[in-house]
Amino acid sequence: MPTILGQNQYGKAENRVVKITRDGDTHHIKDLNVSVALSGDMEDVHLSGSNANVLPTDTTKNTVYAFAKEYGIESAEQFGIHLARHFVTSQEPIHQARIRIEEYAWERIETSDANSKFIGADEVKHSFVRKGQETRVSEIVYDGENWQVISGLKDLIVMNSTNSEFWGYVKDKYTTLQEAYDRILATQVSARWRFNWTDDEQRMPNWEKSYEQVKKHMLQAFAETYSLSLQQTLYQMGSRIINSRSEIDEVRFSLPNKHHFLVDLEPFGLKNDNEVYFAADRPYGLIEATILRDGVEPQIPVDMTNL
Amino acid sequence: MPTILGQNQYGKAENRVVKITRDGDTHHIKDLNVSVALSGDMEDVHLSGSNANVLPTDTTKNTVYAFAKEYGIESAEQFGIHLARHFVTSQEPIHQARIRIEEYAWERIETSDANSKFIGADEVKHSFVRKGQETRVSEIVYDGENWQVISGLKDLIVMNSTNSEFWGYVKDKYTTLQEAYDRILATQVSARWRFNWTDDEQRMPNWEKSYEQVKKHMLQAFAETYSLSLQQTLYQMGSRIINSRSEIDEVRFSLPNKHHFLVDLEPFGLKNDNEVYFAADRPYGLIEATILRDGVEPQIPVDMTNL
Amino acid sequence: MPTILGQNQYGKAENRVVKITRDGDTHHIKDLNVSVALSGDMEDVHLSGSNANVLPTDTTKNTVYAFAKEYGIESAEQFGIHLARHFVTSQEPIHQARIRIEEYAWERIETSDANSKFIGADEVKHSFVRKGQETRVSEIVYDGENWQVISGLKDLIVMNSTNSEFWGYVKDKYTTLQEAYDRILATQVSARWRFNWTDDEQRMPNWEKSYEQVKKHMLQAFAETYSLSLQQTLYQMGSRIINSRSEIDEVRFSLPNKHHFLVDLEPFGLKNDNEVYFAADRPYGLIEATILRDGVEPQIPVDMTNL
Amino acid sequence: MPTILGQNQYGKAENRVVKITRDGDTHHIKDLNVSVALSGDMEDVHLSGSNANVLPTDTTKNTVYAFAKEYGIESAEQFGIHLARHFVTSQEPIHQARIRIEEYAWERIETSDANSKFIGADEVKHSFVRKGQETRVSEIVYDGENWQVISGLKDLIVMNSTNSEFWGYVKDKYTTLQEAYDRILATQVSARWRFNWTDDEQRMPNWEKSYEQVKKHMLQAFAETYSLSLQQTLYQMGSRIINSRSEIDEVRFSLPNKHHFLVDLEPFGLKNDNEVYFAADRPYGLIEATILRDGVEPQIPVDMTNL
Repeated sequence: MPTILGQNQYGKAENRVVKITRDGDTHHIKDLNVSVALSGDMEDVHLSGSNANVLPTDTTKNTVYAFAKEYGIESAEQFGIHLARHFVTSQEPIHQARIRIEEYAWERIETSDANSKFIGADEVKHSFVRKGQETRVSEIVYDGENWQVISGLKDLIVMNSTNSEFWGYVKDKYTTLQEAYDRILATQVSARWRFNWTDDEQRMPNWEKSYEQVKKHMLQAFAETYSLSLQQTLYQMGSRIINSRSEIDEVRFSLPNKHHFLVDLEPFGLKNDNEVYFAADRPYGLIEATILRDGVEPQIPVDMTNL
Repeated sequence: MPTILGQNQYGKAENRVVKITRDGDTHHIKDLNVSVALSGDMEDVHLSGSNANVLPTDTTKNTVYAFAKEYGIESAEQFGIHLARHFVTSQEPIHQARIRIEEYAWERIETSDANSKFIGADEVKHSFVRKGQETRVSEIVYDGENWQVISGLKDLIVMNSTNSEFWGYVKDKYTTLQEAYDRILATQVSARWRFNWTDDEQRMPNWEKSYEQVKKHMLQAFAETYSLSLQQTLYQMGSRIINSRSEIDEVRFSLPNKHHFLVDLEPFGLKNDNEVYFAADRPYGLIEATILRDGVEPQIPVDMTNL
Repeated sequence: MPTILGQNQYGKAENRVVKITRDGDTHHIKDLNVSVALSGDMEDVHLSGSNANVLPTDTTKNTVYAFAKEYGIESAEQFGIHLARHFVTSQEPIHQARIRIEEYAWERIETSDANSKFIGADEVKHSFVRKGQETRVSEIVYDGENWQVISGLKDLIVMNSTNSEFWGYVKDKYTTLQEAYDRILATQVSARWRFNWTDDEQRMPNWEKSYEQVKKHMLQAFAETYSLSLQQTLYQMGSRIINSRSEIDEVRFSLPNKHHFLVDLEPFGLKNDNEVYFAADRPYGLIEATILRDGVEPQIPVDMTNL
Repeated sequence: MPTILGQNQYGKAENRVVKITRDGDTHHIKDLNVSVALSGDMEDVHLSGSNANVLPTDTTKNTVYAFAKEYGIESAEQFGIHLARHFVTSQEPIHQARIRIEEYAWERIETSDANSKFIGADEVKHSFVRKGQETRVSEIVYDGENWQVISGLKDLIVMNSTNSEFWGYVKDKYTTLQEAYDRILATQVSARWRFNWTDDEQRMPNWEKSYEQVKKHMLQAFAETYSLSLQQTLYQMGSRIINSRSEIDEVRFSLPNKHHFLVDLEPFGLKNDNEVYFAADRPYGLIEATILRDGVEPQIPVDMTNL
């Protein structure tokens, strides 16, 4: 046979599960998009079409919904750990499970004054508005022995309206860019960070608190860095996370430089004193890098933050 | 000539303008997407290609950026009023101008504790994170005499996890739906509301405050209505706005019923007590209606909220 | 009551139906996205939440699938006519039905030479590849007496690499654009055309042939017009349709001017002889107009092609 | 220093370049979206913000446009090779360049009969319509010594309306799926294939012919395989390519199983004899695998086809 089968995986992608937890009149919501990918002894199904080792993707979907009831959804990461463990330990041909989860955040809707007096609460306890802003993501991989948990976020758009420069760069025959001593720096953050929790014997991180803290540190490092290049800002964001959060060993960013060009208003007799900008779509600079705790091996794939 | 020219308009669409206002170290940001559509004596350009009456769309783009400097951007509506007036009054062949604006909201990034002590502020005054959530929209039309201002929003996703029923409906031979006495009600609000300010002699509304109040009333009406149908909720949202805001005479909604189906867990020996839902994409119910102050004529087009 | 209900409609949107017709081994496919919007006596459901007049949107979905079996799908327009007639004639409270349909075209996959000899055919008769290119659309409205059928297409991207100029336009203080005597003209056509078939007594158009011919005439008019403005090209496209197709009385276009800017290569010592262009995203010119058969009243809404 | 820098790269993404080649009145078009990613001695810019080793992303953009003039665009792959070689050989700190390109295909617009007689041609030689269908992609990586060229496509949607079964699979406590003996098999192909050309000394493949042939073989294998699982079909598609094209050593697919569910029409007294289907959006099965020429090492990343 002149061809052979390489890496392969299968499962049900984008299972949209919403879990409502009722604490009396106060409801809580978890809103996830769960994708399952399984791999193992799958030669036969590729070569002959025999499904004898194949747990249907439909079954993996059912399992997501059943587990939302059986285990609840404490956090996306914890939920993914339940799922990954189940597939690997319950099906002999399955050697590895990868669970990817997107999470959408919701806020409570505030009560109107009249109603507030009536019900004695500041919020309607079963009413929510989608927060928008970033999408939280996580990936849990289990091979029957070790865990790899990577969390992250995407579509978090940030901007500094000053404290950014760009000069002193290489100039070749195709260089026309003018040096900038006060520019807007804006990007749409895609980030992934890997936990050093790999083993059931270790104490598990507090996934919810960790996420909240990482996001806070990332935003603050972006805001507080006087930037000579987006690369420098990226490194500050990553090292702030590594230095502040002992549960994390590696961070990778994909940061598009969302260019805001100062509009030339001179033809109209106007001076543009860093006030009016054109927000461009394409092309955009794209800066990507991994920051690691000294001594650890990188494991986040190069293309992952670009998904 | 067997064919004639009907309604026509032209202009530059989606001019992305970001305006930074500097109040010492404290920066303020307005982030707009401005679309210009002009109409008037445009027979010639269609029939013969003569551009003698055509102000280039490129010029309308330049005007957007120049006006951001000349007038600032107090609000999207006020900015659109400056632009519309300019095109109609400065160009004899232009009889009507329609300015459509999308606005993206930003929040300040909080300072880290260490930095906060250092700079004595809770926020980095030039650092922002995009709020996400809804997109604010507005449309300003001017014909040289009267104004029509319609504001609105889109992509505001809301959910009630209880206090929604649906029963007592018509049943024909194609009806299989089971009646529901406790369901999730979720929608992605697209709304437009029309101001009764039409004339430069009238006192102009406070556009920023009006938007904030309309959004608040809409959310509260959604949350506080015990719903027997999405139509009923829609009507409550609209009438709450009309009754609370005297500057507004008409509201139109396009509300997709974002179905959350209770998952059948019985095959797995589990009881789903309104806990686990599948969030479906397509198809979706789509409920659209106009609510008017009694006595006024409707002017918001049927298709407008569906854009 | 200080507020009243205006125009309203409801139904199930985006019902994705695929119909396979089997003619022996040769299969045929129709792939539609059908949206139903009904209106009539709907005061009660908005004011009190009574669903006594409400045929559920779920039922309208079921009807789409049942009708695909009962009537087949000869064309999107014919299918929409069956549906609209059914809702208006079978439900007393429903006074008007609007059916919107998107259609995706498929082509057959060619057989490999070896297989071709074996099965004696050039194509695998049950294998298809999505054609891509434009999306065909139609809207059928029925009020119990008269029909309004509007067909159209969107996302048809076309380009002339020469035979386009733009000069002789108005110049005001904000004008910086240079005149162009040989430019690229490119647009993404969104078009809607209205049939003069309004009555069951009239002979019905051949919807499939009409669509094919309108698309052909539109493309040819675009290609064969030496253009002094996109407005002129638009008018030629519309009048070519009206003049060639007697079943059509009105056409409306929304044509974004997809700018292709000649790149300045002089800083690199190179001459750009209309060879290398930057294809821009935003902003873009947007040209919209209706062309009518002389003597008829316009009925296609201004915003419709912009959907 | 407790943190270190890992893999990093930067460049300008999504440079949209359109190249017109004029052969008398006959024009040819190449329409690309080019992304540049460079890596090398970039410690300083991350750690201190020194840009002394940084060729600006703006310069990489300029180079794309200048090279379109200097070298023309024979094929996306050949164009990427010119660019990658330039960056690595002209800038000492740059050790590796990765060029990613999307290509959009265009067809000529046919002439109207009248015009055809006049100009004596079947097509307007400067008029084009975007073909739609798939997007062609390629990635060229150069490290100063060796080349890695991966080509591919995405968004090619295919369907078999019969000759697909799915049964004999594992059944666990969460399995409810019914076995299927005649189902629709549809997918949206994302594929990447790697060339064994790695060295300037080797004869370079004919990139244009190779692409056309690979697409043809892939479509035919999809159509001609009687499928017992999507995995089996995937493997047939991959091995057909490897066996037919000696220039290719490795193929990877990401195939979403675009579910078409047979609609239950029994409640309406109708029999659905494999005629009427609901085309679902989410969730979907997702099947991914690599097929290799026996003896070669896999190099296409697992996540690459999922981009």
